[in-house]
Amino acid sequence: MTDYVERAWPTLRELGVAQAGRPTAIEFTNTIEDAVTGADFVQENVPERLDIKFATFARIEAALSDDAVVASSASGLMVSEMQGGWHDPSRFLLGHPFNPPHLIPLVELLGNERTDAQAMRVAEAFYATCDKVTIRVQREVPGHVANRLQAALWREAVDLVAQGVSSVEDVDKAIWAGPGLRWGAMGPHMLFHLGAGEQGLGEFCQRYAGSFERWWDSMNDIRLDDEVIDRLRSGVEREQADRSMTQLMAERDALIVAMRKLAAPIRKSDTHDAIQHGTAGNAGEHMA
Amino acid sequence: MTDYVERAWPTLRELGVAQAGRPTAIEFTNTIEDAVTGADFVQENVPERLDIKFATFARIEAALSDDAVVASSASGLMVSEMQGGWHDPSRFLLGHPFNPPHLIPLVELLGNERTDAQAMRVAEAFYATCDKVTIRVQREVPGHVANRLQAALWREAVDLVAQGVSSVEDVDKAIWAGPGLRWGAMGPHMLFHLGAGEQGLGEFCQRYAGSFERWWDSMNDIRLDDEVIDRLRSGVEREQADRSMTQLMAERDALIVAMRKLAAPIRKSDTHDAIQHGTAGNAGEHMA
Repeated sequence: MTDYVERAWPTLRELGVAQAGRPTAIEFTNTIEDAVTGADFVQENVPERLDIKFATFARIEAALSDDAVVASSASGLMVSEMQGGWHDPSRFLLGHPFNPPHLIPLVELLGNERTDAQAMRVAEAFYATCDKVTIRVQREVPGHVANRLQAALWREAVDLVAQGVSSVEDVDKAIWAGPGLRWGAMGPHMLFHLGAGEQGLGEFCQRYAGSFERWWDSMNDIRLDDEVIDRLRSGVEREQADRSMTQLMAERDALIVAMRKLAAPIRKSDTHDAIQHGTAGNAGEHMA
Repeated sequence: MTDYVERAWPTLRELGVAQAGRPTAIEFTNTIEDAVTGADFVQENVPERLDIKFATFARIEAALSDDAVVASSASGLMVSEMQGGWHDPSRFLLGHPFNPPHLIPLVELLGNERTDAQAMRVAEAFYATCDKVTIRVQREVPGHVANRLQAALWREAVDLVAQGVSSVEDVDKAIWAGPGLRWGAMGPHMLFHLGAGEQGLGEFCQRYAGSFERWWDSMNDIRLDDEVIDRLRSGVEREQADRSMTQLMAERDALIVAMRKLAAPIRKSDTHDAIQHGTAGNAGEHMA
């Protein structure tokens, strides 16, 4: 864990999150009680088994300050299940980050009718101070929001490979050289809103609903059986070629950090006035 | 059309594609014959109706140089259908760009057993000179590869809104602040290959197949009916707030251009030696 922090620190400094501190500003303790006592905000991240969660929650609750908030990182367990581990679950909520958590801003927040509305607002304010971007999940579904979205994309990606429509490498290329290049800028609804000229998303839907529904109807269910896994693995190894995992991780992280640094001022300038940037809008017959 | 080129030109210069030329280096002609005569490569982009395609192909074929190659931008029609418009379809293939075509590098190439293998290689070489990134689609499916991938993502995005799991704005945020930030760097297979430590994609599949299959099984089919379209439209208008379409397009384009410019040297340095960049690899319990 200290190793991980040491390696992450230069990136956090580059992102401006850690400019004031040093890795040694992080303290490691051997007991839950030591970690929780006096804390305003607790991020719980123990393994995803209900018995382990419950044992942890009991010790957290006993040591917790009166108005502290506790967020669980669980990606599989339901908030309603986890609330069973609390005498008073009102300050307990889901705060689900996305991997790698020190690089990706997203945190998904979920509470329910037993959650104090003020605790949700405290959590949002806390994550904002760490340069995180929060969303609200309004009701529980398996995988929350972001994992469901990437699972939907991956299902089709796997099927295209399994059906022999394209190679693993070319499917990956179709993302990073294609729509993936836009998804770091904006979400799919806003991109399609800009994809049909001035009339926006309503016009886009009218124009392309037929195409989308035909594509949706031609999509297959897929299982990750041994044959499919073998095909994915040998494909990604060809894509990797002679690059090491360490090199590839460094490339991924460098691109994410650079993207975050350049996006912030562009998004910010947009809230003040139009960007002075000579680019054309959409035209032509291609779908956005 | 000249307007579009005027507006796009500064961006093309910034990307280095157009550094040597001026917009006036592009010539507009009033007949297909004038446009095609003497050309080495023809990109056909007429409306997607087979009768219009056939009439165009007949005139192109009559004026075409002996070893010129013709690529069609069709996103809906099949190559096998369009080949019916040619006496000799061997130098005709699909070359499908992605919107906005002057910013997104991806071009999907598809030929079949009637297509000359050399024509495919010529097309790849031609697109490479324009800084395009090509993939090969090995067999015909509706939507080729990239539109199917984004349709799969959007289906789940629409369903999350329709089911009241999250707002349009928060679903969009879940992409650009979450997995979308990684998809401009790498495709989903490579990201998951890096998401389970040194053992790679095989281990990732073993570890998370259960979660993905559960999420896949809980996904719904969805139709773009009037109620859904209304919900999407009012959601995206709230997300847009007081920003104009022009502002938003400028923001999108500025982010894409900046991302392309920064990605090129990072990807290139990776082919030479490990990047000197202090970031941590994956750790912790979160799914990649």
